[in-house]
Amino acid sequence: MGNIFKLKGRFPQDVTNFLVLNSVNIVYFTGFSGAAALLIPKDGECVLYVSGTNFEQAKHVVKNVRVELLKRGEKLFQRVCQDVKTSVGAKLAVDSLSVESWRFLVKAVRDENCLVVAGDVVLGLRAVKSSEELEFICEACRIADAGINTAFEVVEPGVDEQDVAAEVEYVMRKQGSKGAAFDTIVASGANSAFPHGTSESRIIMEGDFVVVDLGATVNGYRSDITRTMVAGKIGSRQQEIFGTVKVAQDLAVKTIRAGIRAAEADSIAREIVSRAGFGDYFVHNLGHGVGLEIHEAPILSPNSENILEQGNVVTVEPGVYIVGYGGVRIEDTVLVTEMGAKKLSNAPYTLQTR
Amino acid sequence: MGNIFKLKGRFPQDVTNFLVLNSVNIVYFTGFSGAAALLIPKDGECVLYVSGTNFEQAKHVVKNVRVELLKRGEKLFQRVCQDVKTSVGAKLAVDSLSVESWRFLVKAVRDENCLVVAGDVVLGLRAVKSSEELEFICEACRIADAGINTAFEVVEPGVDEQDVAAEVEYVMRKQGSKGAAFDTIVASGANSAFPHGTSESRIIMEGDFVVVDLGATVNGYRSDITRTMVAGKIGSRQQEIFGTVKVAQDLAVKTIRAGIRAAEADSIAREIVSRAGFGDYFVHNLGHGVGLEIHEAPILSPNSENILEQGNVVTVEPGVYIVGYGGVRIEDTVLVTEMGAKKLSNAPYTLQTR
Repeated sequence: MGNIFKLKGRFPQDVTNFLVLNSVNIVYFTGFSGAAALLIPKDGECVLYVSGTNFEQAKHVVKNVRVELLKRGEKLFQRVCQDVKTSVGAKLAVDSLSVESWRFLVKAVRDENCLVVAGDVVLGLRAVKSSEELEFICEACRIADAGINTAFEVVEPGVDEQDVAAEVEYVMRKQGSKGAAFDTIVASGANSAFPHGTSESRIIMEGDFVVVDLGATVNGYRSDITRTMVAGKIGSRQQEIFGTVKVAQDLAVKTIRAGIRAAEADSIAREIVSRAGFGDYFVHNLGHGVGLEIHEAPILSPNSENILEQGNVVTVEPGVYIVGYGGVRIEDTVLVTEMGAKKLSNAPYTLQTR
Repeated sequence: MGNIFKLKGRFPQDVTNFLVLNSVNIVYFTGFSGAAALLIPKDGECVLYVSGTNFEQAKHVVKNVRVELLKRGEKLFQRVCQDVKTSVGAKLAVDSLSVESWRFLVKAVRDENCLVVAGDVVLGLRAVKSSEELEFICEACRIADAGINTAFEVVEPGVDEQDVAAEVEYVMRKQGSKGAAFDTIVASGANSAFPHGTSESRIIMEGDFVVVDLGATVNGYRSDITRTMVAGKIGSRQQEIFGTVKVAQDLAVKTIRAGIRAAEADSIAREIVSRAGFGDYFVHNLGHGVGLEIHEAPILSPNSENILEQGNVVTVEPGVYIVGYGGVRIEDTVLVTEMGAKKLSNAPYTLQTR
C-alpha cells in the first residue's frame, strides 16, 4: 500500500483516477501478478480487476484493495468507466497502453481530453526503492554472487557454455531465486565480444575469455552482475583489457552518489576506456536501473538526462568488445546514497577460475 | 526469410512498407533478438535497425537483411522515414506500439492517414507454424517431458516446492533448453487450487496434490506441459477429480482438428467437467497457442472466434480448482492437423510419483 500512497501524492493536475495497466506496475502497487488492471482513485478504495483464472488467488493474496472479477467477455474499459467517479474537468490518467487499447479507452470514456498518459510518474516512483524493496534486491544480489562463485568453479576448457548456465541457475534456484532475472549469458571466446551473446552450446576453449552475466529474482525483484574470467592460461593482452575495464568500473562506482548527473558517471568510465585506446569498443551504456524489471529508470548513458537520487539501484557495467577476439564486462548492482554508491553484489574480481 | 515473404503476400491494401517494432515479431522475421525495428518494404531490401550494443552481433547473425546502426541519440522514427520510399496514397503499416510511440511516429510521418496498425496480420502468420518452427517446438516438448519425468521422481512428502523447480529446470537446461519457457509452477496442497500459483518455499505434505507446469525454450520456441501428481497416498476424491480432468482432456484432444471452431473444443471439455459437478471450478480457458511466446494465437475459450488451422500449435489444459482443497490440471502441447490433434508432449498421466 505504501507505493499507492506515494502515487496519490503525485497525481498529475486535475487527475482524480489513475488506471494502471502495465503488469509490472500492478505488481509494484499490489504485489500481485496476474491482474488485468488496477484503478487508484484519489479518494476512496482501489479496485483490482482480475479474470477468473487468478481471481481466487488475488482475493487470497491482495490486502487493502477491492478485488473484482472481470467476467468472461466483459470489456475492461467499460467496466472501469462504471467504477470511475467523475466530476467536471476531472481526468483519468493511464500508465501505459498500446495504440489499439488507447482507441478502445477513448471510446469508453467518450472524451479524449479527459485522458492523460502518465506512465513516467510511475517509472519515477519505481526508480527510488523503499527499504522493503531494497531487502529483496540485496537478497537477489547475494544469490547472484553465489551464481558467479559457481561459475568461477565450473568454467574451464572443455566445458559447454550451456552447462555453465545450468549449474549457475541451479545454485541460484537452490538458494531461493524464483527463476533467472533474465536470460543467463555465458559467452566464451569470440562470442564474448557480443554484449548480449546468450549461452549457446559452444565448448569453452583454452585461453578463452568467458563473460558470465546473470541475476536472481526474489519476490519479483532482480539483481544483475557480470564477471569475466579466462579459461586456462591468462594472456597479457587479456590482463590489459581486464585491468582497463576494472579501473573504469572502480572510478564510476566512486563517482556515483545522489545528486550527480548519470551522464557524468558514464563519461568517467568512458574516458578511462578511451585513454587506454579501447574507446571504440565500449559499445553500450554504463548502466541502468534494476528493480521489478531488469532494465528500468534511471539510465546511465552519455545522453541521459537523469540525476541520480538516493534510493536508485543501478548497474555499473563498463565493457570492451573486440570483434573476432573477445570481450570483457565487469558489472555490479549498486545502491545510490548521499554518501556514494554502495555495492550490493560482492563476487570477486579476477580473471582466474578455480 | 520465409516469414518475411509470407508477410509480403499479406500486406494490407495500399501498404508499401511494414515497420515491425514488437521484439518477438522481429525475432520471428529475422531470428535475431536485440534489434530496435525491422523495415519490410513491399519491394526491395529489408532493413534491421540495431543500436551499438548489439550491432556487431546482428551483422554476424542476420542474413539477407541490411543491418543498420542506430546511433546514440538518433530518433528511430525519423531514421525510418528517411529510408521509406513513398508514393502518393502509399501507407506505412506498423505491428504494435504504445500510444506514446504512436504519437512520435505520427509526428515523424506528418500525416496520420498514411499509417495503419496491422499487428493482427503478423499474429495470424505466427499462429501457423512452419516445419522449421515445429522442429524447435517438438524439441522443446521433448525436453519438457524430461522435466515432468524428473518431477515424478523428486516430488514426495517433505520436499520443498522450490527444490522441485530447481531440479526440473536443471534437467531441462542440461537437455538443451535455453531457460524456462515461463515461471515454473510447482504448486502443492491448497496452493494447487490457484492456476498460476508459482513455486513458493512450501514443504510438500503427505497426500497433497502437486501441480507441475513447465516448459523449455529451443531457439526461442517454447513448450508448455502440466501434470498433477499426489505426494504419497492417493485419495478417492483425488482420483475422481483427476479422472474427470483426464477424460475432458482426452475428448478435447480427440475433437481438435483443422477446421473446427476453437470454442467447440473448449465446450466439449467444459461439458465433461460440468457433468461431473465441477463446472464452477474450471475457471480458465481450455488452451492457447504456443510459439515464440508462451501465450499467442489462437485462443481456445468459450467466446473465441478462432477457427483452428493446420499448423496451429496449442495447449489443451482443462483443470478443476477447489479453493482450500486443491486443484488438478492436465496439459499437453498439440499440433493441429487436418487429421486431428497430434500430441507433441508425451509424459505419462498418473497421480502416482515414483
